[in-house]
Amino acid sequence: MAPISEHTYHRQVQFPETDASGIVHFTNFFKYVEEAEHAMWRAAGLSIAVMDAELSWPRVAASFEFKRPLQFEAEFDVHLKVAEKTRKTIRYSAVLRKGGEEIAAGSLTIICVRRRPGEPARAMDMPLDIADRFQVAD
Amino acid sequence: MAPISEHTYHRQVQFPETDASGIVHFTNFFKYVEEAEHAMWRAAGLSIAVMDAELSWPRVAASFEFKRPLQFEAEFDVHLKVAEKTRKTIRYSAVLRKGGEEIAAGSLTIICVRRRPGEPARAMDMPLDIADRFQVAD
Amino acid sequence: MAPISEHTYHRQVQFPETDASGIVHFTNFFKYVEEAEHAMWRAAGLSIAVMDAELSWPRVAASFEFKRPLQFEAEFDVHLKVAEKTRKTIRYSAVLRKGGEEIAAGSLTIICVRRRPGEPARAMDMPLDIADRFQVAD
Amino acid sequence: MAPISEHTYHRQVQFPETDASGIVHFTNFFKYVEEAEHAMWRAAGLSIAVMDAELSWPRVAASFEFKRPLQFEAEFDVHLKVAEKTRKTIRYSAVLRKGGEEIAAGSLTIICVRRRPGEPARAMDMPLDIADRFQVAD
Repeated sequence: MAPISEHTYHRQVQFPETDASGIVHFTNFFKYVEEAEHAMWRAAGLSIAVMDAELSWPRVAASFEFKRPLQFEAEFDVHLKVAEKTRKTIRYSAVLRKGGEEIAAGSLTIICVRRRPGEPARAMDMPLDIADRFQVAD
Repeated sequence: MAPISEHTYHRQVQFPETDASGIVHFTNFFKYVEEAEHAMWRAAGLSIAVMDAELSWPRVAASFEFKRPLQFEAEFDVHLKVAEKTRKTIRYSAVLRKGGEEIAAGSLTIICVRRRPGEPARAMDMPLDIADRFQVAD
Repeated sequence: MAPISEHTYHRQVQFPETDASGIVHFTNFFKYVEEAEHAMWRAAGLSIAVMDAELSWPRVAASFEFKRPLQFEAEFDVHLKVAEKTRKTIRYSAVLRKGGEEIAAGSLTIICVRRRPGEPARAMDMPLDIADRFQVAD
Repeated sequence: MAPISEHTYHRQVQFPETDASGIVHFTNFFKYVEEAEHAMWRAAGLSIAVMDAELSWPRVAASFEFKRPLQFEAEFDVHLKVAEKTRKTIRYSAVLRKGGEEIAAGSLTIICVRRRPGEPARAMDMPLDIADRFQVAD
């Protein structure tokens, strides 16, 4: 399979994602991007969290600019791109769109770590069979 | 220390716990009861989830009747009691009150299981040093 | 359109729905049932939460028995049925299945209320154009 | 009362805030900062979300750098500061610390809007009795 550079993820707002101001609570935008990331990994033939595996992918940075609100049952797309790649990290950029409208734009950086019971997590180079599946978008 | 039969947990509603209907989303009542349970375990000198431990306490049943809504910043108490105890399970009853008013009442049953990597979880008798810390309320 | 008695909703476990014990946190089962309910309402041509509407559908009771755990990325179905209907309330029964396996079974009761700014919510008879869309399953 | 420039908010990690990798899911850091913000508003004699009010405070930007993981039951502080203030917006900076250790650092920008039923939200100048309660930290 060719490496993946981008992925579009379709989603509908669920009720508990809204708050008393009537719109999606901002923290859910970060969940939407992570869902899109995991869907992109599945599209690449991978799972980002294999049970009992030592490898883990904590987030080291996340940011969003919110431009328009989303309401209950709104349908939207997360357009996810691989924006940067180092030996240990991947940075994604993400744009949420509803119809033609841009709702929000963000960024998410993950790092490859090894976790063993009783030891602190350590950053490590991504295994090649994972690193080779992703490629920076043009 | 004497075994524990009940615990009162004070809490204030946080904004993301509300939904677009303006009140606390009902699933958060179950979170409040679980927070009260974990506070009760700490009051008993225990942690319900020790890192890397084989023992785990999944929930086997949970129920609630909702009587009055809760709004953002409302302060309330969870009154938690040990309602039943077997060798493998504990059932709690819980009442949420705001001022003198009953908001909701529920029940939560947990079971002691052992989880080992690569094996299915298995129900097991509670270790005595845990079982002895809890006692059914009058 | 003929009234609706049941609905099947397909879902995949998302990462933040898991907890440190490695499985789906039990409160998310209630979210899954609610998602299935809202999908059933859409299948009936309705939205359960219209912006700025006076009508609201708080939950008056919810319960679950949990039989098997769900892990990250597990795919499952929520089988939702209308189990009871009165002039003001609907009770659903729900079964979650993964492959042929029953994961959990629960119940959710909702009530029709009117909310006006500055007034307490009041139970009311369901509007007929909503009540007629649902029918108790055999 | 003198205007407020900073606030320290103490918190303990709750179980559903963890995920299957054993640590706090990154989206909860944004919830912690928002909780600290709302506690700061209460310390200033204000509520950020008054029922049925037209005023609302959506988030226009949010970012975090995550330096160390947090586990279940970890106790930590959110140190919140007013970093910038315009007529319509407030930007907070936030640092999470556990013991002496920095866990994460972030930023959150909010804007004052008016929401009326059936109209889109419009940015507006903060009311003076709110604006005067906050002051940029040194």
